[in-house]
Amino acid sequence: MANSKFEYVKDFERPDYLLPNTWVVVRIDGKGFTKLCAKYGFEKPNDKRALGLMNAAAKAVMTDLTDIVVSYGVSDEYSFVFHKTCTLYDRRESKLVSTVVSTFSAYYVYLWSTYFPDMPLAPPLPSFDGRAVCYPSVQNMRDYMSWRQADCHINNLYNTTFWTLIQQGKMDATDAERSLKGTLSKDKNELLYSQFHMNYNNEPEIFKKGSVVFRDYELVEPGSDNVAEKIDDLAEPVNQSKTQAENDKKRRAKARIVVEHLDVIKDDFWDRRPWLLSNKPGKIPKQT
Amino acid sequence: MANSKFEYVKDFERPDYLLPNTWVVVRIDGKGFTKLCAKYGFEKPNDKRALGLMNAAAKAVMTDLTDIVVSYGVSDEYSFVFHKTCTLYDRRESKLVSTVVSTFSAYYVYLWSTYFPDMPLAPPLPSFDGRAVCYPSVQNMRDYMSWRQADCHINNLYNTTFWTLIQQGKMDATDAERSLKGTLSKDKNELLYSQFHMNYNNEPEIFKKGSVVFRDYELVEPGSDNVAEKIDDLAEPVNQSKTQAENDKKRRAKARIVVEHLDVIKDDFWDRRPWLLSNKPGKIPKQT
Amino acid sequence: MANSKFEYVKDFERPDYLLPNTWVVVRIDGKGFTKLCAKYGFEKPNDKRALGLMNAAAKAVMTDLTDIVVSYGVSDEYSFVFHKTCTLYDRRESKLVSTVVSTFSAYYVYLWSTYFPDMPLAPPLPSFDGRAVCYPSVQNMRDYMSWRQADCHINNLYNTTFWTLIQQGKMDATDAERSLKGTLSKDKNELLYSQFHMNYNNEPEIFKKGSVVFRDYELVEPGSDNVAEKIDDLAEPVNQSKTQAENDKKRRAKARIVVEHLDVIKDDFWDRRPWLLSNKPGKIPKQT
Amino acid sequence: MANSKFEYVKDFERPDYLLPNTWVVVRIDGKGFTKLCAKYGFEKPNDKRALGLMNAAAKAVMTDLTDIVVSYGVSDEYSFVFHKTCTLYDRRESKLVSTVVSTFSAYYVYLWSTYFPDMPLAPPLPSFDGRAVCYPSVQNMRDYMSWRQADCHINNLYNTTFWTLIQQGKMDATDAERSLKGTLSKDKNELLYSQFHMNYNNEPEIFKKGSVVFRDYELVEPGSDNVAEKIDDLAEPVNQSKTQAENDKKRRAKARIVVEHLDVIKDDFWDRRPWLLSNKPGKIPKQT
Repeated sequence: MANSKFEYVKDFERPDYLLPNTWVVVRIDGKGFTKLCAKYGFEKPNDKRALGLMNAAAKAVMTDLTDIVVSYGVSDEYSFVFHKTCTLYDRRESKLVSTVVSTFSAYYVYLWSTYFPDMPLAPPLPSFDGRAVCYPSVQNMRDYMSWRQADCHINNLYNTTFWTLIQQGKMDATDAERSLKGTLSKDKNELLYSQFHMNYNNEPEIFKKGSVVFRDYELVEPGSDNVAEKIDDLAEPVNQSKTQAENDKKRRAKARIVVEHLDVIKDDFWDRRPWLLSNKPGKIPKQT
Repeated sequence: MANSKFEYVKDFERPDYLLPNTWVVVRIDGKGFTKLCAKYGFEKPNDKRALGLMNAAAKAVMTDLTDIVVSYGVSDEYSFVFHKTCTLYDRRESKLVSTVVSTFSAYYVYLWSTYFPDMPLAPPLPSFDGRAVCYPSVQNMRDYMSWRQADCHINNLYNTTFWTLIQQGKMDATDAERSLKGTLSKDKNELLYSQFHMNYNNEPEIFKKGSVVFRDYELVEPGSDNVAEKIDDLAEPVNQSKTQAENDKKRRAKARIVVEHLDVIKDDFWDRRPWLLSNKPGKIPKQT
Repeated sequence: MANSKFEYVKDFERPDYLLPNTWVVVRIDGKGFTKLCAKYGFEKPNDKRALGLMNAAAKAVMTDLTDIVVSYGVSDEYSFVFHKTCTLYDRRESKLVSTVVSTFSAYYVYLWSTYFPDMPLAPPLPSFDGRAVCYPSVQNMRDYMSWRQADCHINNLYNTTFWTLIQQGKMDATDAERSLKGTLSKDKNELLYSQFHMNYNNEPEIFKKGSVVFRDYELVEPGSDNVAEKIDDLAEPVNQSKTQAENDKKRRAKARIVVEHLDVIKDDFWDRRPWLLSNKPGKIPKQT
Repeated sequence: MANSKFEYVKDFERPDYLLPNTWVVVRIDGKGFTKLCAKYGFEKPNDKRALGLMNAAAKAVMTDLTDIVVSYGVSDEYSFVFHKTCTLYDRRESKLVSTVVSTFSAYYVYLWSTYFPDMPLAPPLPSFDGRAVCYPSVQNMRDYMSWRQADCHINNLYNTTFWTLIQQGKMDATDAERSLKGTLSKDKNELLYSQFHMNYNNEPEIFKKGSVVFRDYELVEPGSDNVAEKIDDLAEPVNQSKTQAENDKKRRAKARIVVEHLDVIKDDFWDRRPWLLSNKPGKIPKQT
């Protein structure tokens, strides 16, 4: 049975290489998580176990895919940032998106019982969709991260107020929604404080800021150097020696991957962690 | 914190709608399965448990995604065929690929312990990549399926002979490879028979033919009608009434999804199951 | 001066092969032709010289690019149809679009003085933009052609009535527009007849039907055969022998390219000219 | 005749917006110019009339399309650079490519008789194909320009030597080719000097450097400022006031478009003309 007469079907595959010298963000989103929340009784407005599971899966993705420099998660979504010099899978979009989504989904199911020991998974299982977006400059990529974190803040303030009105204020959803229509941030802060003696600022950072995941090296004093500008100057994939590339890979593998709840909008986060933009591993901090 | 100043980053997303009126095949492939086979001691040349797990995950994908009309699996790959009238996710490529890959990966991990009860999974977990390809005509789509099944046959005959030389013939891999270099199908058949008294035709169908998964309705006498031509004549997504579409969906949900090891290259398979090309649910067979 | 250090910039080119086995339509549109009409005093609602120039340029494009099987023009737009088996420039979208647009523009300028001998061109020159669209089935492609011709009819009936109200009815544009708002085809026909004793059916075919350009072979009695279905059955580029391909090319080169004003919506046009769908040159008609 | 039943064909058009915040280079190439050169007797290795015509057409393109900041031409090719903030036609690839190609082709034919008064054009007419490439950083875009200019130098030195061997050395093409095989630049320089008393450095700049076309403002002292870095910092299309945008447009329209033969590889060219990277019109120089 010669296969040659059917092989022409390979010509229908379309190449999908992403533009070189751009930051690639793969964002994944939970599919039908409203139903999932109800099915497994996730707490409202935030479920710490569910966020813990998302973060653990994201850490596992970054452990398996060392080309990801930083990721950011909120609610049932996670964004993974590949450095603009990344050449993994020749930057083929389908490969990058499907590998991230597959790895994340696998760990989400695998780690489920750690975070929900009393609630076994049952079909239909949780799943995620994903897409890739290219950002040409450091500023574009940082603005993407800022967009997600600003969104996290806006949604969380809304959800916190909404669910407080329901859970403590004994409103139904329709009344709560009506109460919040047209309100500004300061109105919601004021409402929480005056009616429920609740200071939004004291809410857990993981709810207010979301989660940022990265390899942990020694922090750098800011102001010494402008990494962003140098990064944009890089025109082409740096031709590292093989030895250098392998050394970098080893140092990355040794670095601890941490989950923090920091402000990624301000410069400080990026200035103190120049390895995020430069893709050069920093110094492994001494364990204490 | 107004979000508007960052929202411009959404403009960097590229639309990726697949061409209407084409068959969409999403193929997924195991990543690094050579290592995985070694790690969990998969049997050579075929491991029935591993194939059973692949098939179970594919069945689950087709249960969750009712727009898939047929799928075909061999080794660590699976191809899922969406009907050319499918409008799921507005035919966005990233959505279709990532959802299939995510759902498959989730079930693969979830069902692992059923097929490998004595071998718990440990990181790094199995994962899959995927891509979508559009085929304009029924013939193109069928040729794609034929291509995969012809490939299955060629590889399985090679692998069966190769591993028989090693396992029963006590050759090492280099010698076995050398023995097979340049041989034709009939030479391998002859070798198996003369040296090992083994008739390749008696090998299990799942190894020789791979697995085809579809909804099971009452078979139709072939020859009565040419569905393929009518299908190619369809120019645009059929505007079904909502009631009709819902009825179809219910009948699909009721249909049993079966895993068979049939020849999909010959016309017979398609002629007797006109619902695969027409996307009209057939008659639910009476249970016996 | 070694060039190698700059050559990496070639990697930024994106491949843009159009899906095989689909009909490729390249449509071009005049840029800013409202201004152009005013500048050179085109007659309203239709200028026979301008249409003649468009048709002459389209004929020249089809003479230079023998892969185009049929084209259709109306007003300042022209659609060129490449057969679904076409492999010109490996079906690269940019190449196909830019070559058609360039060739058309060159002839439009070159032939201008033939059609407007008393009105020399002056910068800014007329120019055209273009795009390619793929259609998977014969029915899709024919529906595209029907769409353009139905559009021609609707626009021409409107414009004819609108300009008659202005030119003969002495209305201004605002009043003419108001008179036509919400009218149906039969209302406009009636208005032309009752107020201006004008029978729209007697208008020139080139205005009512637009122009269709194709190679002229002997007509075939319709009903004998269904070419469209056979065409959709073709799964892959036909592997003609080189001799056969060259013979076909020669016969195409010998065929007269004609401009007609026929109905391309009904089957008759396609049934009597099977070479349009089959891409097999027909019989050269005897000159009389 | 309702058009609605055919309008679904519009859904087959694919969006093709180019990635924002990237430099767009549209390069056009003459089609079959080897034949054209022979047909009209272009001089070898360079024909000043033909280059003059290319440059005149490029100037006309830049006059009509004010979004182009700089262009570079050599032989039968021309590259047009759109600023990374350009939003012309919503950055649709087909529109940008086809408009450039169409406008260039129209002027090439229109201006032909000015440069070749004694040689009237005859079909098949000269035509050009084109494609667009996106470059994320200033350095990428400058490297693209450097690549073309380095290529110009390499080809021109080769062609000059090759044709001197033929025209003055009375070699045939095969011998000339053989003589040059494996030679370095200095070998060719040496060959020209020792055998033909010809100093390559004294060749016309237009042959050695190609042609660069841009709007002419007052030159700026270099070193004062790093425009390139600031340009890469720009993250999004600058939201100019409408008045500002119109002022800029007027100043651009007033600026003289010049054709020069300068080194675009070194920094000096870009440093002294900051408006090329900033897209802010400079000062119109006083006429003398």
